[in-house]
Amino acid sequence: MKQIKFFNLLLLLSICLIATPAWTQNDPLPSWNQGSSKAAITAFVTAVTDKSSSDYVQPGERVAVFDNDGTLWGEQPAYFQLFFAMDRVKELAAEHPEWKTQQPFQAVLEGDMKTLAASGEKGLLELIMATHAGMTSDEFTEVVKKWLQTAKHPTLNKPYTQLVYKPMLELLNYLRANDFKTFIVSGGGIEFMRPWTEEVYGIPPEQVVGSSIVTKFEMRDGKPVLIREAKVNFNDDKAGKPVGINQHIGRRPIFAFGNSDGDLQMLQYATLGSTGKRFAGIVHHTDGEREVAYDRDSHIGRLDQALIEAEANGWTVVDMKKEWKVIYP
Amino acid sequence: MKQIKFFNLLLLLSICLIATPAWTQNDPLPSWNQGSSKAAITAFVTAVTDKSSSDYVQPGERVAVFDNDGTLWGEQPAYFQLFFAMDRVKELAAEHPEWKTQQPFQAVLEGDMKTLAASGEKGLLELIMATHAGMTSDEFTEVVKKWLQTAKHPTLNKPYTQLVYKPMLELLNYLRANDFKTFIVSGGGIEFMRPWTEEVYGIPPEQVVGSSIVTKFEMRDGKPVLIREAKVNFNDDKAGKPVGINQHIGRRPIFAFGNSDGDLQMLQYATLGSTGKRFAGIVHHTDGEREVAYDRDSHIGRLDQALIEAEANGWTVVDMKKEWKVIYP
Repeated sequence: MKQIKFFNLLLLLSICLIATPAWTQNDPLPSWNQGSSKAAITAFVTAVTDKSSSDYVQPGERVAVFDNDGTLWGEQPAYFQLFFAMDRVKELAAEHPEWKTQQPFQAVLEGDMKTLAASGEKGLLELIMATHAGMTSDEFTEVVKKWLQTAKHPTLNKPYTQLVYKPMLELLNYLRANDFKTFIVSGGGIEFMRPWTEEVYGIPPEQVVGSSIVTKFEMRDGKPVLIREAKVNFNDDKAGKPVGINQHIGRRPIFAFGNSDGDLQMLQYATLGSTGKRFAGIVHHTDGEREVAYDRDSHIGRLDQALIEAEANGWTVVDMKKEWKVIYP
Repeated sequence: MKQIKFFNLLLLLSICLIATPAWTQNDPLPSWNQGSSKAAITAFVTAVTDKSSSDYVQPGERVAVFDNDGTLWGEQPAYFQLFFAMDRVKELAAEHPEWKTQQPFQAVLEGDMKTLAASGEKGLLELIMATHAGMTSDEFTEVVKKWLQTAKHPTLNKPYTQLVYKPMLELLNYLRANDFKTFIVSGGGIEFMRPWTEEVYGIPPEQVVGSSIVTKFEMRDGKPVLIREAKVNFNDDKAGKPVGINQHIGRRPIFAFGNSDGDLQMLQYATLGSTGKRFAGIVHHTDGEREVAYDRDSHIGRLDQALIEAEANGWTVVDMKKEWKVIYP
């Protein structure tokens, strides 16, 4: 009797002890075809997590940064945050009768994308400020959450949070299972992303870095609030990305993934000039059938200089069409 | 023989199983006398971690923020970062012969604290910029680390990292053991704190919020660097603290600790206007014998308005003299 109990106990103990290794023997990246990118990713993770390797990196130093638009979710035919701003304009139009004859609002209300595009950076900034400022941070969070529950992509007709890339979700999970801390470093609005990144990507608000407008602390009717003001605070794009990383994380990442020239400096910052093993990856949108094929000549997510640098520095360029079994979850 | 092995195994297993509960039965705050502050802290933590309580808070939402100067380590007779700047001036003086006759540098070199103080905010800012800017972030990190290895407090004659408050170290550990994420939110320089907060407080760089100067990304001889410029970027003090918290963390803390009027808005932001259970604490420097007694009339760490608000809002005010068994580790 005692012998049987002993055996059972031993069995239980064995199961506990082998549980983790057994799990990692499964393919952690099932949506990735066997190919150079998958091999490069797994080789890197294996090297930096192997205590006996000279490339070993302590868990706390395993910082991985990801661009969002075009890297974790789609960005065509326009940044999803722009669609949010346009939907907001339509919703707020009743309170703003003047928008009927005032650009760029008129263009949005009339669905005139050509005039909207012609309004340029100045017009877009006006649109962003009219829809993103003038309320508290808490109120804005609620607006974004509510929008995501009902809004659908204009051509794909799906909720935006379903237009995330399944292979990248697997990559995030794979890294976290190997004690990486995963961060978003995006040109998108930090308070536009935070309400949903934890649920969708498993990335909590404090690990989201992005562009921001100025906020101001105020006691309003005895309640402390942060008011969002119509003024740019930080542009987390291009040379701003390493600045944002240093400001928020305070460590240099060892792993970085982007998809456009806006990510070039982040990829450089994470990988060049270091003596240790580093990883830089680029999602190359090559799949015109399942998604959109674009790179050097695209207005959104232009990928030109970073592609040249990738070649020069041996960065991993993911051929979406060849290397991803599926695009969306 | 088998019986003996079985017994050993069972014993081993029992030790493993009871290890955690046994530990939590011990007093997690041994340096705190039984008193109202200790009772308030443990009652709060018990309430928000009890799944059956209406005050229960999910682990991810258990954000705790701490001021640094005067809350986690000392700040008398001047902020330790000022001593760092002064030591730097002395070290760099050979490269700057003009400092011999140029204020506020002359005052520092001559140990003339009165003239230094008289140089006011403008003089201090000049001192900070001359000693904190003009190098890369990596270089500055090394300068801070090297300084901490040898520098000693001018009157206490101890390394600065030993002038941290033992009861607060226990509090940080206690919160983390209860799945709180602990952050520093300080008016001090973010890059001055990050090189040592993990080792000293167990708080990693990405959980440090502070004041900052502008940094600029540059490729220098093929290496990506961030250059520290002589320009203020963000002042993480007073109404800036809630802004810094929102910018870095993106969640409203449920637990906040400070010691001066500079922390008032942070304490308000964390606790007022919420329906859930919240905790605000103030370290009151009442111990003129073991430390320094100061509050309303102090130039450094003035505590006046926050003390009034503490009374009005039922915040916990820690009487250092009565409630702390020891001050330093």
